[in-house]
Amino acid sequence: MEEKKIVISGGGLVGSLLALLLGKAGYEVDVYEKRPDPLMTAPETGRSINLALSHRGIKALQAAGVEQETMNIAIPMKGRFIHHEDGTNSFQPYGEEGQVIYAVSRADLNKTLLNKAREAHNVKLFFNERCVKVNIEEFSIEFENKLDGTVKAREFSVLFGADGAFSQVRSSLLPTCRFNYSQEYLEYGYKELTIPSDAGAHRMEKNALHIWPREKFMLIALPNLDGTFTATLFLPFEGENSFESLKTDAQVETFFKSNFADAADLIPELKKQFAEHPTSALVTVKCYPWVYENRIALIGDAAHAIVPFYGQGMNAGFEDCRVLYDLVTKNWSLNSSLQEYQKLRKPAGDAVGQLALQNFIEMRDLVNDKKFLLRKKIEAIIHHKIPGYLPLYSMVTFSDLPYHEALEKGQKQERLMEEIMKIENIEALSEDKEVWEKIEEMVKREMGR
Amino acid sequence: MEEKKIVISGGGLVGSLLALLLGKAGYEVDVYEKRPDPLMTAPETGRSINLALSHRGIKALQAAGVEQETMNIAIPMKGRFIHHEDGTNSFQPYGEEGQVIYAVSRADLNKTLLNKAREAHNVKLFFNERCVKVNIEEFSIEFENKLDGTVKAREFSVLFGADGAFSQVRSSLLPTCRFNYSQEYLEYGYKELTIPSDAGAHRMEKNALHIWPREKFMLIALPNLDGTFTATLFLPFEGENSFESLKTDAQVETFFKSNFADAADLIPELKKQFAEHPTSALVTVKCYPWVYENRIALIGDAAHAIVPFYGQGMNAGFEDCRVLYDLVTKNWSLNSSLQEYQKLRKPAGDAVGQLALQNFIEMRDLVNDKKFLLRKKIEAIIHHKIPGYLPLYSMVTFSDLPYHEALEKGQKQERLMEEIMKIENIEALSEDKEVWEKIEEMVKREMGR
Repeated sequence: MEEKKIVISGGGLVGSLLALLLGKAGYEVDVYEKRPDPLMTAPETGRSINLALSHRGIKALQAAGVEQETMNIAIPMKGRFIHHEDGTNSFQPYGEEGQVIYAVSRADLNKTLLNKAREAHNVKLFFNERCVKVNIEEFSIEFENKLDGTVKAREFSVLFGADGAFSQVRSSLLPTCRFNYSQEYLEYGYKELTIPSDAGAHRMEKNALHIWPREKFMLIALPNLDGTFTATLFLPFEGENSFESLKTDAQVETFFKSNFADAADLIPELKKQFAEHPTSALVTVKCYPWVYENRIALIGDAAHAIVPFYGQGMNAGFEDCRVLYDLVTKNWSLNSSLQEYQKLRKPAGDAVGQLALQNFIEMRDLVNDKKFLLRKKIEAIIHHKIPGYLPLYSMVTFSDLPYHEALEKGQKQERLMEEIMKIENIEALSEDKEVWEKIEEMVKREMGR
Repeated sequence: MEEKKIVISGGGLVGSLLALLLGKAGYEVDVYEKRPDPLMTAPETGRSINLALSHRGIKALQAAGVEQETMNIAIPMKGRFIHHEDGTNSFQPYGEEGQVIYAVSRADLNKTLLNKAREAHNVKLFFNERCVKVNIEEFSIEFENKLDGTVKAREFSVLFGADGAFSQVRSSLLPTCRFNYSQEYLEYGYKELTIPSDAGAHRMEKNALHIWPREKFMLIALPNLDGTFTATLFLPFEGENSFESLKTDAQVETFFKSNFADAADLIPELKKQFAEHPTSALVTVKCYPWVYENRIALIGDAAHAIVPFYGQGMNAGFEDCRVLYDLVTKNWSLNSSLQEYQKLRKPAGDAVGQLALQNFIEMRDLVNDKKFLLRKKIEAIIHHKIPGYLPLYSMVTFSDLPYHEALEKGQKQERLMEEIMKIENIEALSEDKEVWEKIEEMVKREMGR
């Protein structure tokens, strides 16, 4: 009788990294992916094309031994390059000197992970296999082969649903008793547009994440290896300045010229792209429990889909894998690690979902605000001068403090910064020694608590 | 070609009342119900056996012309009969003299509604038909006949999902774009027990809803026509005093004897019933939109399942039907009424869900609290003496003010009552004229706002 294996439904970023890590831990792992083998075909369109990779994700890739391969296809971004409404630009570094996040192509990273998985003797990949349903009582899962239409049931010792925000494995858990679940959509949608290269060279600063913040909406752009940028427009579905209000070529052109003049000049096929590229929705998914009978577990977006505004979706999913890997190697048992996994990761998943929603306001609105920028500057000085003080963005992006602890600390620091901003003559910080002494005292008092 | 009809999936309380009302409005309606025809079989067990019917429900039954038939099977309950921990009892009327709510059997009421629907020439009932899926793009629904296993697809002009808290119609809408959804379980479960009659006579006060409030848990009982009571134990699933902690007969007996001594004496088969009756979970479901392409609509629990602690689940569902009926007869069009229906009823559904959760605390805990009881008494005096002042419970139970308006008014009154309770010498209200004058002034000032 064949021994029952670990089955991973979904061979995307999280599924393929999880396969690598569980393979490394000695398990026999089969990965089923509904899309074709990316070695054979061009990547599908319509999903986010590139992503931000930061500390948590890199730490997980390190654990899997694919850090170097990933760095080869990653572009460092040192900070936010802001395109203001008046045509001026400014630059906001993400952290201290040398602290960067990376733009990576989803397709390239997925291929890298899958190719590494192919090398592992105990990991098998199956493509064109769509999950039809999970028989939770029998601990089996059915896949339909998209090439020949056959449906086969597979038993498993443990099944992972690494099948994304619209997880089929999660759908199977939805009717089970006391399964809490929510899916909540933003009133905003997004559309991706390509800024072509100048004969292979980037037409804007390459090592930055570009933002055109316009309060109620925004455009962002991340660099690609081939010299292009992938720009993403975030816009309400309905109302003034919405996808609904941009129906004709003329409306699109007027909207871009008056809001993103420099970007509009860089996209010659703007109207065509706008008409042809899909408009997608933004959802936050929360659920619990993530683990059913210690045999079925959700991971990554399947467990906690979030909006993209903190650049943490993939990083959070990768961190799930890394934490689980650490537990498995500590406990020497997968089944017995699953309860600990969900207890550790559920508060983290909730927190990163909340952080992502909050950061949308910061990105589209606050990065433009004088007072906010002064605050950021003061916080950077505190960070630089007072050891142990980390701004929220750094805790999330450059540390692996659990997200919920970062969120809680961040809320405390937020209140502290509000107090600091009330200091008389705060604008004169750089010249006035007394102002700094006051700040230092307040920060140290707070940190001492 | 056969004209497309209105299809209602679910012939429970809400589905059968909706069929009656739409039939009355002149539509051809087909109702599909997965259970057998109740004329042919005994009612299924495992669901709540009796329910509280109040003003909103009665108003809807009036509109459908079944008020009289319903009253024939209803038992008036004048208030809460409290069984205190020390063995004493007290009685709290629900409202003014003559204001009562009614205990009705779910099965009897359903039969009454279905029989009335049978009489309508334009309403057809189909039993043993289980909804398999809804093809939302083709506007068709598939039912499997449970007797012969055949599956048939039905087209519809409009489909109503009146299929309860675990609605299959709603499941079909779940993957549609921008469908917001949440299902949230309480940490409490419930178990129903039967208090037998004394040769057809009730063994406790018949015209009351009995409550044994014990802070962290409670027992309630509603009278049945046959002299029995249906008691319901609400208890945490886990922890001290939980379903988990009541595994053996001895544990059950000790728990009941020490917490509900009088009730335990009335249930000779307590341990057998406890072991055999199912433990059920309590869920709150919220979703939006309720209407898809003006052709598929959710109603009742399918749109807004709530916990049972305000006795409003059925009443809210019946009010959905009555509001829709009013819109349809006003607009002379069903499709064009659906948008208005969901806009009117969504805030009401959210509010009644919140009220139901709040009332759990009142029922299991506050009804025992001296201060709370004094407040209730004072509020009753205000209600009696000052025209236009309605306590929250009365707004919810004895009026048809939209639930969300009742909730909002109730929150204002809550703050007012908190102020009133701070009046010096408030306990002396009945003897001290000045105290009353102060209260009167405060209430009138608040009402004038």
